[in-house]
Amino acid sequence: MTMMNNVRGILLGLLLLAVCTATAQTKVYPTHWWIGMKNPALQLMVYAPNAGKAQYTLNYPGVKLVKVHKAESPNYAFLDLQVTAGAKPGTVKIAMRNGAGQQTINYQLKSRRAGNGTAFATGVRQQDLIYLLMPDRFANGDPANDAYADMLDPQADRNNPYLRHGGDIQGVIQHLDYLKELGVTALWMTPVTENNTKQTNEGGTQRSSYHGYHFTNHFAVDKRFGGDSAYKRLSDEMHKRGMKLVHDAVYNHIGQDNFTFTDMPMKDWVNQWSPFQQTSYRDQPLFDPHASAIDQKVSEAGWFTPFLPDLNQRNPYVANYLVQYLIWNTEEYGLDGWRVDTYFYNDPEFLNRTNRDLLREFPKLTVFGETLVESPVSAAYFGANNFNVPFKHNVMGITDKPLMTVMVQAANEPFGWSEGVNRLYNTLAQDFMYQDPTRNCIFLDNHDLDRVYSLVGEDIAKYKMVLNWLLTLRGIPQLYYGTEILMKNFKNPSDAEVRRDFPGGFKGDKDNKFTEAGRNKQENDAFRFVSTLAKFRQRSDAIGAGKLMQFLPDNGLYTYFRYSPKQTVMVISHTGKADMQVKMDRFAERTKGFTQMRDVQSGLVKPLADFTIRPKESFVYEFLP
Amino acid sequence: MTMMNNVRGILLGLLLLAVCTATAQTKVYPTHWWIGMKNPALQLMVYAPNAGKAQYTLNYPGVKLVKVHKAESPNYAFLDLQVTAGAKPGTVKIAMRNGAGQQTINYQLKSRRAGNGTAFATGVRQQDLIYLLMPDRFANGDPANDAYADMLDPQADRNNPYLRHGGDIQGVIQHLDYLKELGVTALWMTPVTENNTKQTNEGGTQRSSYHGYHFTNHFAVDKRFGGDSAYKRLSDEMHKRGMKLVHDAVYNHIGQDNFTFTDMPMKDWVNQWSPFQQTSYRDQPLFDPHASAIDQKVSEAGWFTPFLPDLNQRNPYVANYLVQYLIWNTEEYGLDGWRVDTYFYNDPEFLNRTNRDLLREFPKLTVFGETLVESPVSAAYFGANNFNVPFKHNVMGITDKPLMTVMVQAANEPFGWSEGVNRLYNTLAQDFMYQDPTRNCIFLDNHDLDRVYSLVGEDIAKYKMVLNWLLTLRGIPQLYYGTEILMKNFKNPSDAEVRRDFPGGFKGDKDNKFTEAGRNKQENDAFRFVSTLAKFRQRSDAIGAGKLMQFLPDNGLYTYFRYSPKQTVMVISHTGKADMQVKMDRFAERTKGFTQMRDVQSGLVKPLADFTIRPKESFVYEFLP
Repeated sequence: MTMMNNVRGILLGLLLLAVCTATAQTKVYPTHWWIGMKNPALQLMVYAPNAGKAQYTLNYPGVKLVKVHKAESPNYAFLDLQVTAGAKPGTVKIAMRNGAGQQTINYQLKSRRAGNGTAFATGVRQQDLIYLLMPDRFANGDPANDAYADMLDPQADRNNPYLRHGGDIQGVIQHLDYLKELGVTALWMTPVTENNTKQTNEGGTQRSSYHGYHFTNHFAVDKRFGGDSAYKRLSDEMHKRGMKLVHDAVYNHIGQDNFTFTDMPMKDWVNQWSPFQQTSYRDQPLFDPHASAIDQKVSEAGWFTPFLPDLNQRNPYVANYLVQYLIWNTEEYGLDGWRVDTYFYNDPEFLNRTNRDLLREFPKLTVFGETLVESPVSAAYFGANNFNVPFKHNVMGITDKPLMTVMVQAANEPFGWSEGVNRLYNTLAQDFMYQDPTRNCIFLDNHDLDRVYSLVGEDIAKYKMVLNWLLTLRGIPQLYYGTEILMKNFKNPSDAEVRRDFPGGFKGDKDNKFTEAGRNKQENDAFRFVSTLAKFRQRSDAIGAGKLMQFLPDNGLYTYFRYSPKQTVMVISHTGKADMQVKMDRFAERTKGFTQMRDVQSGLVKPLADFTIRPKESFVYEFLP
Repeated sequence: MTMMNNVRGILLGLLLLAVCTATAQTKVYPTHWWIGMKNPALQLMVYAPNAGKAQYTLNYPGVKLVKVHKAESPNYAFLDLQVTAGAKPGTVKIAMRNGAGQQTINYQLKSRRAGNGTAFATGVRQQDLIYLLMPDRFANGDPANDAYADMLDPQADRNNPYLRHGGDIQGVIQHLDYLKELGVTALWMTPVTENNTKQTNEGGTQRSSYHGYHFTNHFAVDKRFGGDSAYKRLSDEMHKRGMKLVHDAVYNHIGQDNFTFTDMPMKDWVNQWSPFQQTSYRDQPLFDPHASAIDQKVSEAGWFTPFLPDLNQRNPYVANYLVQYLIWNTEEYGLDGWRVDTYFYNDPEFLNRTNRDLLREFPKLTVFGETLVESPVSAAYFGANNFNVPFKHNVMGITDKPLMTVMVQAANEPFGWSEGVNRLYNTLAQDFMYQDPTRNCIFLDNHDLDRVYSLVGEDIAKYKMVLNWLLTLRGIPQLYYGTEILMKNFKNPSDAEVRRDFPGGFKGDKDNKFTEAGRNKQENDAFRFVSTLAKFRQRSDAIGAGKLMQFLPDNGLYTYFRYSPKQTVMVISHTGKADMQVKMDRFAERTKGFTQMRDVQSGLVKPLADFTIRPKESFVYEFLP
């Protein structure tokens, strides 16, 4: 019954649902499709009472029904279609006969989006600055959509850190100009995909899936965030401003109230364990040549939590369903990139297929996998790498957790042979393992980690140093919402601490930190610092397209360059304890042809000459002839 | 003048010096050669007053003088010879005309050693156990050779930790049966090559080059160690016992009294710096894709110390000289393997050439490079690896410092997500970076590091745990002399602390730890422990030729298997704080077909069943049907 409530909720949320003359219980996924896809194959999941017992026929020029597959549940049929190059947009009428009864599924084939994919010639690249936000916690643009009585979790309560707060996509749209002012060029939100799921009880605490990772319908945006229409408006408004949209994907698991779990097509739709087996959260068994089979299986097929059914992507119906979810969302919403959650917990062959299939249809798209791993070896392994290994991953970029860790240690730790800023130097020195480290998403914090301002002990000098690194090192930088206004906190006692509401985004907020007037002096200083560098980097050929050259740290002094034929930028940071004389001769390889250096923050120009640097100072200089 | 003393010393030390009718000042390197080498090219260095001004001719069937090269110093000539397949053993008379004067160089071509290389079909492999000793500090078998008044450092003084103590090769020969009893199958001594060099003053302390790393003649064994004849006897005595001999190579530098430095053939014989530049000792610039050229140059071409001239191997004469030194020593002494000192400080193209050239002549030979680096990435980079990188190193194995570090941390640190024994697990999981990690030389300590018994806090249980790992993990284990009798000490205040004399090796020693009677109870316990496991591993197909399978550590309990079709060995160690129940089901992949397990140390057989393990316990079990 719970499932049927769920189904009704989904139906309300879908404005253009393809099932017209079919009964309301008949659902088809993907909900519609497009002509002109490179891959003519399309596998429809038909879900309805006894859908598996029906006969299916269709008659539409250029579209063939190749095969119908039954499942173990009588309520599913999988229809293999071929949508050939000659097919025209229109409604494919699929006749569904079940004994004496008959329905017609009106399945829409649409024209593809202009340009067949991302609006941008380059996808999301290191020229960009990604802003990561949680839509429930950023701004509430439409209080009418905060909660729905007919959803499985009908509660919204801003006073409870573990429940929904009411933030939504409209709130993001209202602050796009704020993001533009900050210098942001791309947005990644934690998932907006429908999570029509019960609250979970974790350690005695009732929690909503306000974070979005408990999918119940891969083909719909949660109506509490504003639904499909709001998301499409966001996409359009961003593209109008030259900004790019990154979507958060989850392949590994689904919400426990997802209909494919409450009524599984087949038993192996999810990875089954008896007794229940949680993942070890260990990446090592997946590349360790000495791993045991059981450790590998637990890492990949163990469940992330007891309430997140773990999809079995070796089941070809699951794999097709997920790949089509990716393509459908990209085309439907005009996405520029994907961030893939819990990357290494998925079947590796399936992962490679997702990237091949996505790039076949959307060659400009950017994809990066979330790899919350500790060593650069592991991070590189799970992306496109320079290893000769039995299994080669192919995702162009990964979320660079190893770099995050060492940036913070570099600012915090005393300098040593292998400590402090030498960790940052050493990690970057291992970049040869990546096919292209500039495709990594680099960051200082996110919704699963301590906030960086707390990590650096609320020390504004260290904050500026690590932000200088974030915004000038190789990779696509990602800023976590609120970092620009010094939002702080550790994950301890709970991750809710690092997911607080953006002040000013919600009705009744005392302060509005979206405005200069609402920010205090230090917050404005931080905002201006980030914004100045972010805007500089937007125009910087050296940062956007140049190379990196780093010099061996010396007593805590760490210097690197970004450089291209058009521009040279020096980033110099002093993590040591005593004033130091910076000898420009040391950098002779990169100073040739220049006589002056401009401090990107102050705009002041000074001669390119030796100078004194004090502990905790960090500068970004553009060299001038 | 000093140089000429040096030259006289060398001449005395060479019994078969090829210069007969030539004047005593005329030296030729290599001092002789062999017919039947795969590579017909041979480049002789002729060193004599005005050797570069002479005309050279020879007339010997199958041997051609192809070209004579002059150097910048008038005292050198380099003669390119071709020794073709048809040449017979004998004396090649090389006429050397200088104006009116003429000399004849009688250059010997010998027959090659039976089998053309190592006596063993496999070289040194993981079946073996290498014993590393410093010949000056192990045993003094011939007090007559302790010091020579005509050498640049005429002093021997056992009471001074920084000077020579008088140990020698004869002392080693006298204790080969001790090593055999210990279960050792291979020997690596710090260099026995001639070091006729002055004492150095380091930080106010006068030091002898008793360690052997300051070469003055690449083609002679130091007479204070017994010279060539003693070394040949050692080689023969070892081979008779089925033991293998590993020689310590230095390519990177020479002693400051080496004649090629005091009278350089050409200015670029060594890497020249003005002002003097020491190496940074940093490996990272050599693989860092973002490295500056100057950091790369300082790492590789900077001098190791001010008194170790850094050879320039991009000079082809230097490269030929060194490659011929390797081939000459291998053939002359019947070597089974090479350990190459300061591996990454050398020109990488040259390094690859040394390995290619050595293996061409001696296909069974083992070579491992000393890479005292911190990360497995770096260690793998400098050996034969699975990286697609612009420059590919080719040495079959490296000294596995990263593994050493984590073995000690595993025994010492409290268990944590990334700490304690998880470090060992994580490091082994990265083995995919090596082409063959079984070719790595693995160790717990050596002459440059703290002694392992001190590292584990003189805790005999931890000592046994780390030795279990050393002797059963993948790789060729190397035991540092005295570890078997619990010799201890940290490098602080000086490396002399970890290079103390083996008790019983020297006249007047109070105790003789070479004998059971001379060892105390705990020392005998340690000796028996090592010896029992070492002898077990000699016959163990699982350890010698099998695979490794490791299981994710659980609360400090770490278990791995070595297994082959013939044998299965379980190594289980508990680094946690509380008693644990070992569930054998966890290891079902490796227990199938077995019903009993034999404790290798006690010999006791028990049923293959769950059992309780206590903190710090570590067992090696052989499974039985």
